Amino acid sequence: MAQRQQIDKAQFAQFEAIYPDLKELLLDHARFYNLPPGDLEILKANLESNLLGGTYDSGMVVPSTVSVLIGATLGREQYKQAAALGWIVELLRASFLMSDDIINGSISRRGKPCWHLQKGIGLTAINDSMILKTSIYYLLKVLFRSHPAYVDLVELFVETSWHTEIGQLCDQFVGASNESARSRLDSSSLPLYNYIVTNKTVYYSFYLPVAVALHFVGKATEINLEHARKITLSIGEYFQVQNDYLEYFGSPEKMGNQGADIRNHKHSWLLCQALESASPPQKEILERNFGSKDQAKRTAIKNLLERFGLNQRYFEFEEKRSEEVSQMIAATDEGAGLKKEVFYALWNKVHDKDM
Amino acid sequence: MAQRQQIDKAQFAQFEAIYPDLKELLLDHARFYNLPPGDLEILKANLESNLLGGTYDSGMVVPSTVSVLIGATLGREQYKQAAALGWIVELLRASFLMSDDIINGSISRRGKPCWHLQKGIGLTAINDSMILKTSIYYLLKVLFRSHPAYVDLVELFVETSWHTEIGQLCDQFVGASNESARSRLDSSSLPLYNYIVTNKTVYYSFYLPVAVALHFVGKATEINLEHARKITLSIGEYFQVQNDYLEYFGSPEKMGNQGADIRNHKHSWLLCQALESASPPQKEILERNFGSKDQAKRTAIKNLLERFGLNQRYFEFEEKRSEEVSQMIAATDEGAGLKKEVFYALWNKVHDKDM
Repeated sequence: MAQRQQIDKAQFAQFEAIYPDLKELLLDHARFYNLPPGDLEILKANLESNLLGGTYDSGMVVPSTVSVLIGATLGREQYKQAAALGWIVELLRASFLMSDDIINGSISRRGKPCWHLQKGIGLTAINDSMILKTSIYYLLKVLFRSHPAYVDLVELFVETSWHTEIGQLCDQFVGASNESARSRLDSSSLPLYNYIVTNKTVYYSFYLPVAVALHFVGKATEINLEHARKITLSIGEYFQVQNDYLEYFGSPEKMGNQGADIRNHKHSWLLCQALESASPPQKEILERNFGSKDQAKRTAIKNLLERFGLNQRYFEFEEKRSEEVSQMIAATDEGAGLKKEVFYALWNKVHDKDM
Repeated sequence: MAQRQQIDKAQFAQFEAIYPDLKELLLDHARFYNLPPGDLEILKANLESNLLGGTYDSGMVVPSTVSVLIGATLGREQYKQAAALGWIVELLRASFLMSDDIINGSISRRGKPCWHLQKGIGLTAINDSMILKTSIYYLLKVLFRSHPAYVDLVELFVETSWHTEIGQLCDQFVGASNESARSRLDSSSLPLYNYIVTNKTVYYSFYLPVAVALHFVGKATEINLEHARKITLSIGEYFQVQNDYLEYFGSPEKMGNQGADIRNHKHSWLLCQALESASPPQKEILERNFGSKDQAKRTAIKNLLERFGLNQRYFEFEEKRSEEVSQMIAATDEGAGLKKEVFYALWNKVHDKDM
């Protein structure tokens, strides 16, 4: 266990060490157009505050997957390139989290005030979020223009953005505290939950890094991508349900940063499940108090959730999904360069989460 | 004059007629991913409310420039493609105006409440603005993937976004009502004004459509692009200064929509010029009241501006810039397919504006 932690720590440090050069590339791009020094400082703070300090869960998947796909430890230059792609995944993630935090009125992110709440920022964070998104395509151009998959990579990031944005479009009206939003939550809760979670979060967190790695090593056949998509979305959805469960039934100190990311997510798996069994007055309580940070309200909700047997229902979901994922992974056709190990690595990280 | 208006009206209608198919392509893209009907309605409203009803000043430049460059009236299919690119320019513009309106707390756009102030929208407009930006790259892919300039077009839109965003980054801290912003406005007003105007607005409004047209007809050599860039930025800057001037010295009914776009622009050419001559108490008045919609304050500011001789200074600027632009256009090397007529057309539209 201690050895495993040591390896993780070393990988984390190796990944983080790639970032300063990428940040400089972006600052140079602004310097090239003579951005005044004061604004350059803000750009720098944006690139540091919103990119660093996370778990890099999605970004680090790129180099590790590339390594599995080519069946070898990556050489220095190879690692640098794969990790740069990982950081580009992190740029997309950071851009969306920033704008999401503004839309949701979130207060903190990774233990610090959200970017838009930092001194002198406010709604200008909208533009800062756009800068991160544009930086994706600039870095792809500077670093990968001569790569055979350059155009595919650009299009993959565009398509992933589209998924995230239509997921957000769908999510925002569920979160809205008005009649039509509530009745919608009521009537089609669980399929809607799956739709939102898949498009808004899972697509860029789980599918994107694996697809990027496949493109990078030249093994992104239609069949490989489709198989990767099915499995990663299934794992990612499992991860989100698990997070929602841990939100009420896990111990906070074991959730890590990832939990905090979804803490404002009103459209929780638990809530959807509970609404299916709740009487009208119970629905009222659930809709009003779910997600509150107030300890008394949380305890009341937790008791209600237990009464609906949601502990049991979660374990049933977990067992069923585990079996499905295992079967899908086992059915991987390795003939065109895809490896089961890519998915086992992802799955183990999510599934073995210490509860 | 009446005939000219008739031609303009016909061109306008021809351009607008291209949009419904593009909108359907985008809606189909959302339908393909099963976006629920209610959300589809919001997407549709976004694509209509934020794209239609403008003057399409930038977008319409693409087909007209293409026509000049190939020296012929465009055939049906050719026009459709060139106009689609014009609409993609309009998508970029709409996306930036939406987020800009949120950042600036603007109230109306094109005579309607801003999108973020429309019923049920609010800060979710941030995501709607992102959807428009992502739509650019989706339409480029669907319509132009087999075009030889596909990659160049994608990169052009990315680079233009970067210009707009660093321009906005620079602008937002000038607009801020705090000490450091004010002292900054004071000390380096005019160069900063030029920097912001060029990057934030002129780049995408003036340079982008001409560059897009050059790529579309396969004449985007480095030299042609650079020449087009210099002239269009010069014309665009002139246009912005003219707008700022007309804001105080023009009659409102003759300004059209374009004027409204910049009405919240605190960092005006007039203000920059006035600050150069103002005493400390006058600066105080200028900074406090400039841009106010209150009629008494406007009159006081106008009197102050007249006392500084800004009418005269504007006419000097106009004369000088007109000469420079004319010389640059005359010096156009038409050997690699660029045409002086491209720039004369732009210049005449801006310069002959009825004052």
